[in-house]
Amino acid sequence: MSTAAAIGPDHWALDVGEHALADAIFARLAAETGDGVGITRECYSDREDAALAIFSEVARAHGFEIDTDAAGNLVVRFSDDDGTRPAHYIGSHADSVPQGGNYDGAAGIVAGLLCLIRIKRSGRELGTPVRVLMLRGEESAFYGRANIGSRSLFGILDEKDLAAKSRGTGRTLAEAMSASGIDLAPIREGQVLFDAAKAASYLELHIEQGPVMTDRALPAAVVSGIRGNLRHRKVICRGEAGHSGTVPRWLRKDAVFAFAELVGRLDEHWRVLLERGLDLVVTTGIVGTDPDEHAISRVPGELIFSFEVRSQSHDTLEGFYELFRSECRAVGQQRGVVFEFDDRVYAEPARMNDKIIEMLSKAAADCDLAPQTLPSGAGHDAAVFANAGIPSGMVFVRNANGSHNPHEDMDVDDLIKGTDVLYKAVTSSN
Amino acid sequence: MSTAAAIGPDHWALDVGEHALADAIFARLAAETGDGVGITRECYSDREDAALAIFSEVARAHGFEIDTDAAGNLVVRFSDDDGTRPAHYIGSHADSVPQGGNYDGAAGIVAGLLCLIRIKRSGRELGTPVRVLMLRGEESAFYGRANIGSRSLFGILDEKDLAAKSRGTGRTLAEAMSASGIDLAPIREGQVLFDAAKAASYLELHIEQGPVMTDRALPAAVVSGIRGNLRHRKVICRGEAGHSGTVPRWLRKDAVFAFAELVGRLDEHWRVLLERGLDLVVTTGIVGTDPDEHAISRVPGELIFSFEVRSQSHDTLEGFYELFRSECRAVGQQRGVVFEFDDRVYAEPARMNDKIIEMLSKAAADCDLAPQTLPSGAGHDAAVFANAGIPSGMVFVRNANGSHNPHEDMDVDDLIKGTDVLYKAVTSSN
Repeated sequence: MSTAAAIGPDHWALDVGEHALADAIFARLAAETGDGVGITRECYSDREDAALAIFSEVARAHGFEIDTDAAGNLVVRFSDDDGTRPAHYIGSHADSVPQGGNYDGAAGIVAGLLCLIRIKRSGRELGTPVRVLMLRGEESAFYGRANIGSRSLFGILDEKDLAAKSRGTGRTLAEAMSASGIDLAPIREGQVLFDAAKAASYLELHIEQGPVMTDRALPAAVVSGIRGNLRHRKVICRGEAGHSGTVPRWLRKDAVFAFAELVGRLDEHWRVLLERGLDLVVTTGIVGTDPDEHAISRVPGELIFSFEVRSQSHDTLEGFYELFRSECRAVGQQRGVVFEFDDRVYAEPARMNDKIIEMLSKAAADCDLAPQTLPSGAGHDAAVFANAGIPSGMVFVRNANGSHNPHEDMDVDDLIKGTDVLYKAVTSSN
Repeated sequence: MSTAAAIGPDHWALDVGEHALADAIFARLAAETGDGVGITRECYSDREDAALAIFSEVARAHGFEIDTDAAGNLVVRFSDDDGTRPAHYIGSHADSVPQGGNYDGAAGIVAGLLCLIRIKRSGRELGTPVRVLMLRGEESAFYGRANIGSRSLFGILDEKDLAAKSRGTGRTLAEAMSASGIDLAPIREGQVLFDAAKAASYLELHIEQGPVMTDRALPAAVVSGIRGNLRHRKVICRGEAGHSGTVPRWLRKDAVFAFAELVGRLDEHWRVLLERGLDLVVTTGIVGTDPDEHAISRVPGELIFSFEVRSQSHDTLEGFYELFRSECRAVGQQRGVVFEFDDRVYAEPARMNDKIIEMLSKAAADCDLAPQTLPSGAGHDAAVFANAGIPSGMVFVRNANGSHNPHEDMDVDDLIKGTDVLYKAVTSSN
């Protein structure tokens, strides 16, 4: 780590191997944006700026030009790319959650920079230029709002977003963005600030945030789509409290037993739908009886739980939601309980572009990777670009221990494999 | 109420009907021990004393004698009963939980007094005398200890019990008992202060604390036994937390889904065992994911729950407990979770005496009541007497809305029916 960290501004341009360069960048990031526990790069703060400065140093050292867009994101381009031709954008984000890991977001920017450097070193002339888009504010951790940097570009950042306060600094997002030198007027007006006609594609490399690739020994894989979700923050299963010793089974309206049966039924539907090949995950992450009322010797009269279903398919989401509501009714009738629902919240899935998936899959095959696509369970800026009509695709890189914690564990060899896929994709189509 | 309440000390002895007398006693109890919300008669306090004073007034007005026993309980006897012959004791308790109802405990004392009065009015001479035992401190609400008045009589009140502090007054139980004029020395020594040879039986009438009799339209019924229980206050189901969008079903170790499956399996065992005629209730009254960790979008890595099984049969308790542990193992293996258990707590069931059950059942049949016995899910002083070897039995009287709340709702007509059973039982065996 100390050797890598010693590779500073004057050394970025040396003819160092890709692996060593990536190591050096991650070491600098850890040194400058570490918080003692993990990594903290709050968006539109000096920590995100510090990360962008490191990336920019590398880019400039290799002779690339850097522009700042209307939302404060940075675009890295070849010096002979005047920005007028449609390009492949390789994008990712520079920010992190508090006490997060060093790879969520940064890995994608490093991969983009390595691609540019590899193209430059190869001396190839590309018909479609490649640019790296270094985005701000992808994580929702500080403002409770995700994809700030990308949504600003498409006129879908609203006043509520701008009024949200940082849990870190207490500033509003508007204040933080203004302090970063961003003119908020066009963003407030909902102007589209990214010219879709200039984007042949939006490509994003990201560490996998789940355990699938580790389990299946996949170093890199193409993403099929980004799951949307349907949620209730709070469902109340309301039965009838009673003395645990005196109320027999046939007279109980036990909220816990009713909930358990509901979950059992949903689990069985889930199992069957997976066998049919549908994309689906189901979670009730928050569950509890009422602390003011519950007791060991009391039949529980109430249980509150959250409900979430995620899928890449809108139809699967809606179909499973219908099953959920109908099983609530069935369990209610059978067990004498009622279910009460708060507002349903829907987040749209984003399908990756079929041609882009094909292009990336072909590149992956050329790199001897298994022909395996994977859904993304978490949200990404690629969803914003995809839903704005820009042909989008993603590459996942294997990573242990999930993300949003200091234990993210990506092997740089795997990152290089993911970079290979991006490089093959953007060069073979040129 | 105002008319009934007007029936005071000078009027108890009037030749008023049993129903009106009972109404008058309950009205006086409500007036003198009401707390504005419900009824509060803390044991060994002036509120319990007030209730005992009302009962004693009634007894004296009808010419009965009253003795105080070594634990401060009162014994009502005929003036020509010198206390040397074995008697049928009709017992119940004078205390209540805070903000409780007017019938839990008091109903049994009123029934006993009505029995004595009826015997006296009938002019019958009984070979086996009948006495009413007005007990103190049955409820655990104030000291966290139940059956204080009865356990004191059998040498099973220990130093920990005596050191417990009242949640009402903050005094220790020892202080409160001493203030009531009780000599603690023999109780501390574990002396048996009740001469079992002087008890032909211990009979207790109590309101039902569950919904069964209301549901089955039973005004009064004989109790078959008092359920014991096996408990864990805290079982931890430990799985593995993860991002709800990124961890697929086959890699999840979801504590909530595992718990739901466990409950589903236990529910099925319970259903089958009931069909086989076993006495059993199963409850997990406290259930919750970890508020410091849980989130809508997080696969729950931990769920804590309480476990309780109750039965009149020791073997059923142990048998079901084995099923519980073995299903925990099975679910653990299947779902990748582990269950961690705190200390197992056991409270012994108390079987009512077969001959007493037969005697009460015959009396119930003579009163045209359905031949239906019922388990008691809650504890009673009768369990202390039964486990001390005294032939014991109970009669339940229908009561709506459960007990330990201000909404206890017993019809005095049903109390009279229960009294009929007691009266038949103690007179026909004489």
